[in-house]
Amino acid sequence: MEKIILFGGASHEHEISIVSAIALKKVLSQPLRFIFIAADRRFWLIAPEQMRAEFFARHDYKKCPQLYPVRGGFEQRRWLGTTRIEGVAINLVHGADGEDGHLAGLLAFLEIPFIGPRLEASIMSFNKAYTKALAQQAGVKALESEVIVRGQQPSFDFPIILKPLRLGSSIGVGVAEDAQALEYALDVAFEFDDQVLIEPFVKGVQELNLAGCHTQEGWQLSIIEEPAKAELLDFDQKYLDFARTQSQQEAPLSEPLKEAVREAFKRIYRCGFEGALIRCDFFIIDETVYLNEVNPIPGSLSNYLFDGFETVLERLSHSLPKPRSIQVDYRYIHSIRSAKGKA
Amino acid sequence: MEKIILFGGASHEHEISIVSAIALKKVLSQPLRFIFIAADRRFWLIAPEQMRAEFFARHDYKKCPQLYPVRGGFEQRRWLGTTRIEGVAINLVHGADGEDGHLAGLLAFLEIPFIGPRLEASIMSFNKAYTKALAQQAGVKALESEVIVRGQQPSFDFPIILKPLRLGSSIGVGVAEDAQALEYALDVAFEFDDQVLIEPFVKGVQELNLAGCHTQEGWQLSIIEEPAKAELLDFDQKYLDFARTQSQQEAPLSEPLKEAVREAFKRIYRCGFEGALIRCDFFIIDETVYLNEVNPIPGSLSNYLFDGFETVLERLSHSLPKPRSIQVDYRYIHSIRSAKGKA
Repeated sequence: MEKIILFGGASHEHEISIVSAIALKKVLSQPLRFIFIAADRRFWLIAPEQMRAEFFARHDYKKCPQLYPVRGGFEQRRWLGTTRIEGVAINLVHGADGEDGHLAGLLAFLEIPFIGPRLEASIMSFNKAYTKALAQQAGVKALESEVIVRGQQPSFDFPIILKPLRLGSSIGVGVAEDAQALEYALDVAFEFDDQVLIEPFVKGVQELNLAGCHTQEGWQLSIIEEPAKAELLDFDQKYLDFARTQSQQEAPLSEPLKEAVREAFKRIYRCGFEGALIRCDFFIIDETVYLNEVNPIPGSLSNYLFDGFETVLERLSHSLPKPRSIQVDYRYIHSIRSAKGKA
Repeated sequence: MEKIILFGGASHEHEISIVSAIALKKVLSQPLRFIFIAADRRFWLIAPEQMRAEFFARHDYKKCPQLYPVRGGFEQRRWLGTTRIEGVAINLVHGADGEDGHLAGLLAFLEIPFIGPRLEASIMSFNKAYTKALAQQAGVKALESEVIVRGQQPSFDFPIILKPLRLGSSIGVGVAEDAQALEYALDVAFEFDDQVLIEPFVKGVQELNLAGCHTQEGWQLSIIEEPAKAELLDFDQKYLDFARTQSQQEAPLSEPLKEAVREAFKRIYRCGFEGALIRCDFFIIDETVYLNEVNPIPGSLSNYLFDGFETVLERLSHSLPKPRSIQVDYRYIHSIRSAKGKA
């Protein structure tokens, strides 16, 4: 089936998603379809040769054919009748809409097959407090944390890290080493959510990323990457990071540690991420694996971590969870009518 | 704004939803629009006089105009152009689709205003294990519980109650007093989900229901009902229960207990149920309030518990959470272009 890359969306990561889609175009062979979701959530069919960042920044997409999501696909309306676009959609809408379950709800309801997190998995990875519950369910360690609302003060000792509860990204995240920095970091974080997650900030901790998915052919796992050291990726760095297409070296790790990271990934993935290609970001503390966060739609799907990325995506597109099928036979209505003597 | 009742859906409670919509028609004044979601998830516009159970059981709805969900409403396609239906949708799809977040995702994404649980609240009330986490977050007690998968045995002493983890209803729920009954109850429960929630079964416990919502005018709370004693509502009883329109007497309770129930309701509601009219089912054990379950779309919205139900619904329809508005200014794309000297 044809692959349809869905990108953009009403999200703070709208531009990142554009860059991510352009990167994906470079690493996947044609034919690919590109469907852009504008900030007002209208859908537009973008020709592959139009996939340049400035095309969107100049609002040139508005000259493209507008599409409508319908049962099983997308529809282009013409003077006489309509044209349908069908295939496997790749949800590449980072942040809100794509990762918070809204797009998953729309696609699942309309029975459009898609690669990406399902509803429940979206909610569990988008809300960082629920991710802690997810880790617990999976039997994977996570840093202790607390959630505060405006006016509350964190109870942890400095340094701490502050994260808006529900942005699946590093936007609004800050570190506070003292009370003065705290005030600023709280202001920033509360700009993006009315609840903020607080964790102890562990300096110089080793970070490891692993991406992958499960398909009919078994586990498709990437190399384990030790991401470039920056205490935190700011938005500009992240923007560039999402454009990556150059393949990466595996981190030099002991075999038992690699195995522990892979095992932690599989345990998390089994908690409902079937159908998605996700990246788990881990911390290693005293040789123990801690889940930092689940990225259910990694930038350009972390293509640079895979050997044979296109094959992985192809396998995943044939291994999507089957939609529930419900038989409605109107048994109760019929039986009640017959009890009333009307059948 | 006109009210649009959305009912049916690809759900085991499809027929219950039809009955619930018919009950709602009796208690709300016209004009009302009725949009039926068939088991295949197509949308149909039903005329008020067609709102009879047998109309659906005989598949007569297929002769009605088909509708398509679009940005801001529903569209009927005609020979020349289209007709739009706009208003506040009341999500009356009980069980799957309506309560599991799929319909909420679709409606929110298309920016169709609706009464009903939002995405996160749907996930938290649909999955009974997450409801326990919700109660904890709200500071309301809940019975201890465990989740088992096929092949596992409950660790609790008999009698226990078994519930499929993710059906927002009493379907598949069973009580086991001994090992023999357990085997049967497990078979039934696992027919509906691959995870089952186990709780101790407390005999003769007092049950209390309270429905309500929060609007610009403040809290709109129903009377507190002590539901008719049946150890468990089976599907037939539930079917009849959803057709209720006769108003109910408040349970004779002490004022402090009433106040404790109302306080527990408000704490739960504030955990994300804004925009919905929900019913919380509580247990009273040793004069302490325990959350049993949250019903985020109660049958016929529990009209029979309210004095002035129509006013409550009207107020709620003017108090819906505002959709996020995201400004996309292509700042990063522009700044990167200018760094490259292309601006």
